[in-house]
Amino acid sequence: MPGISKKAKDMPASPIRKLVPFAETAKKAGKKIYHLNIGQPDIETPAEMLDAIRKSDIKVLEYSHSAGFESYRLKLAAYYKGFQINISASDIIITTGGSEAIAFAMMTCFNPGDEIIIPEPFYANYNGFSCAADLVVKPVRSYIETGFALPPISEFEKLITPKTKGIMICNPGNPTGYLYTREELDLLVVLVKKYDLFLLSDEVYREFCYDGKPYVSVMHLEGIDQNVILLDSISKRYSACGARIGALISKNKEVMNAAMKFAQARLSPPTFGQIGGEAALNTPASYFEKVKTEYTNRRDFVIEALNKMEGVFCPKPSGAFYCIARLPIDDADTFCQWLLEKFEYQQHTVMLAPATGFYATPGAGLDEVRIAYVLNLTDLKQAMLCLEEALKVYPGKTVLKTETVGVSK
Amino acid sequence: MPGISKKAKDMPASPIRKLVPFAETAKKAGKKIYHLNIGQPDIETPAEMLDAIRKSDIKVLEYSHSAGFESYRLKLAAYYKGFQINISASDIIITTGGSEAIAFAMMTCFNPGDEIIIPEPFYANYNGFSCAADLVVKPVRSYIETGFALPPISEFEKLITPKTKGIMICNPGNPTGYLYTREELDLLVVLVKKYDLFLLSDEVYREFCYDGKPYVSVMHLEGIDQNVILLDSISKRYSACGARIGALISKNKEVMNAAMKFAQARLSPPTFGQIGGEAALNTPASYFEKVKTEYTNRRDFVIEALNKMEGVFCPKPSGAFYCIARLPIDDADTFCQWLLEKFEYQQHTVMLAPATGFYATPGAGLDEVRIAYVLNLTDLKQAMLCLEEALKVYPGKTVLKTETVGVSK
Repeated sequence: MPGISKKAKDMPASPIRKLVPFAETAKKAGKKIYHLNIGQPDIETPAEMLDAIRKSDIKVLEYSHSAGFESYRLKLAAYYKGFQINISASDIIITTGGSEAIAFAMMTCFNPGDEIIIPEPFYANYNGFSCAADLVVKPVRSYIETGFALPPISEFEKLITPKTKGIMICNPGNPTGYLYTREELDLLVVLVKKYDLFLLSDEVYREFCYDGKPYVSVMHLEGIDQNVILLDSISKRYSACGARIGALISKNKEVMNAAMKFAQARLSPPTFGQIGGEAALNTPASYFEKVKTEYTNRRDFVIEALNKMEGVFCPKPSGAFYCIARLPIDDADTFCQWLLEKFEYQQHTVMLAPATGFYATPGAGLDEVRIAYVLNLTDLKQAMLCLEEALKVYPGKTVLKTETVGVSK
Repeated sequence: MPGISKKAKDMPASPIRKLVPFAETAKKAGKKIYHLNIGQPDIETPAEMLDAIRKSDIKVLEYSHSAGFESYRLKLAAYYKGFQINISASDIIITTGGSEAIAFAMMTCFNPGDEIIIPEPFYANYNGFSCAADLVVKPVRSYIETGFALPPISEFEKLITPKTKGIMICNPGNPTGYLYTREELDLLVVLVKKYDLFLLSDEVYREFCYDGKPYVSVMHLEGIDQNVILLDSISKRYSACGARIGALISKNKEVMNAAMKFAQARLSPPTFGQIGGEAALNTPASYFEKVKTEYTNRRDFVIEALNKMEGVFCPKPSGAFYCIARLPIDDADTFCQWLLEKFEYQQHTVMLAPATGFYATPGAGLDEVRIAYVLNLTDLKQAMLCLEEALKVYPGKTVLKTETVGVSK
């Protein structure tokens, strides 16, 4: 029997999905599970989008252009102009989800062994795509005490080597919910220019900024338009994760021409997803206002509920629909599995994502979990009640640690 | 400005799509183009498939399971049983097109620098996926004189080195239309066992076998079930290229577990494509009978028309919907571009794929083109007429060469 590749062995299992078998067993045993472990919103997909797919009069389901429908890219360019992002249709390649945009960007920009600096905790699949592209992730740590603000630039600079070829950020952040300020991003500009790095930015949560705080895109930054690659997806924007439509965007023509070769090799993005994505651009502003109000209420409830629990600390995020909470537990992986295998409260339990999978530094995030507030308030109340009860009886409960990272709570 | 990766520079442009800009210019100038350059059938997608998508009552367009709907995989297992392929739902991962199945298989099985032997000419994008996976393609040449039969095993064996980790075939073949016999495949089994190689087989054209000749799958072969990976797609089967649904299939659990990690990183395959793919399994046998009759008629017409042209030779394929023809031309790339840029016959022209892009050996296929007989007979007649007229006036016309490859015509 031939052996599999080193990459296949090294490839990390998804920390978000690896608990799925335990959840399946729990469900079969009759437990109701509140899924706060995955960014799968319960919000309805806009009717405009689904209707367009239902009404399509396709006779032959053909390949599309490898960069995606031109009509869609033209309308997308107008959508981005609404966020003061000045790009044209030719600066856009439609991808199969944001995932493919990340994969294309990494293969286009980096050689095997090249290093990319990513503030941690970060979206776990960045590890997977880096592994697939033989790229070395150098994490720069952000801390729960500062709400996961951008680490000092000096910390980035310590990690720079001749192999460093890029920086990747997620803004608004998954898993932290942190929203970078203009000041923070301007500090990154200096670094990007100084070392001539690529700056990859995953901005799929731009519609989810709260408390009137502004969304600042890497495309707004001055003097680095040849360095910047914007990675996007409609999955969260329209609660349309199953459409598998994203985009890779850059003003750098060499990058776009090369990315196009990867796009051509896989022929085209999904046609029905594109039909839906194009129609979704007609979604009225009222849809987003309603969604934003809903998420704001959920966030406010969850953060308050968490911080009221004994020994729990959770900073209030300004974006996306996640938060990271520190719990009085010995080991987040053990705890999350225990919640599914051993615990129930009124035949309910809650599924969380251990934060360890979002850190590249071994041992980091051991007492942290990511919570996606993607359920309605009624369910969220039950879920928080479950968690509170679970923390009372969890065998690996600890007393609250005081970390000494030099930043006060 | 940071430089792009070596891989991005090395990545081949699609030979099928690289002429697209010339075609666009020709169209703008008012020329009608017969597209025989791409495997995009004009056959209607089964109504069952499109209806299921139109009737879907999705409210929230969620991620699916990373391996695809369980209901779909269960039905697919039954579909394969109809071809005497005994697999279960857990041996299947639904992928985003056959393209993703190839990418997952390559990343799972091969380390950077590993070698894979592929009979050439082969589907051009195998080059692209190999480049993306840092894999070295070792072509073993098949010849037009034998209709592109499997090269002698001794020719494979000459290429074996300590780096050789697999063999890849396409059966029925794109771009050749060749259908491997049981005898040919049994010879491969000996080689696969002797050197413990992976055997990747792209069998997306299994419904398109003509003249009563049998389809033999690598899954039918004895004693190599841990070596075999079947790569599949519904694009050609149901004329559903835009669905972007394929499958990676293997009995090797280590391969499947590793491939699943790549699948999890990209979250899920497209939901609407899966809905369509599942419904398409109810397509009546009469659909395929009609399609097969249609393609048989097209093939018979095209092959006869080609062989009647002065200096043209085209073997008769038994599968898929392609053939490779040798033309009396100096350079297929120049000729195909000339057809679009300089030639017209009654304001029509024809778009072909230069065969050079299907060979890895430099200089091979210089006087060959791939023709996809994916148009109706009326259009095919016009297209063949265009080609015949073009060959009369093409400035780089040559006299027919007699190749000396030891096999008579």
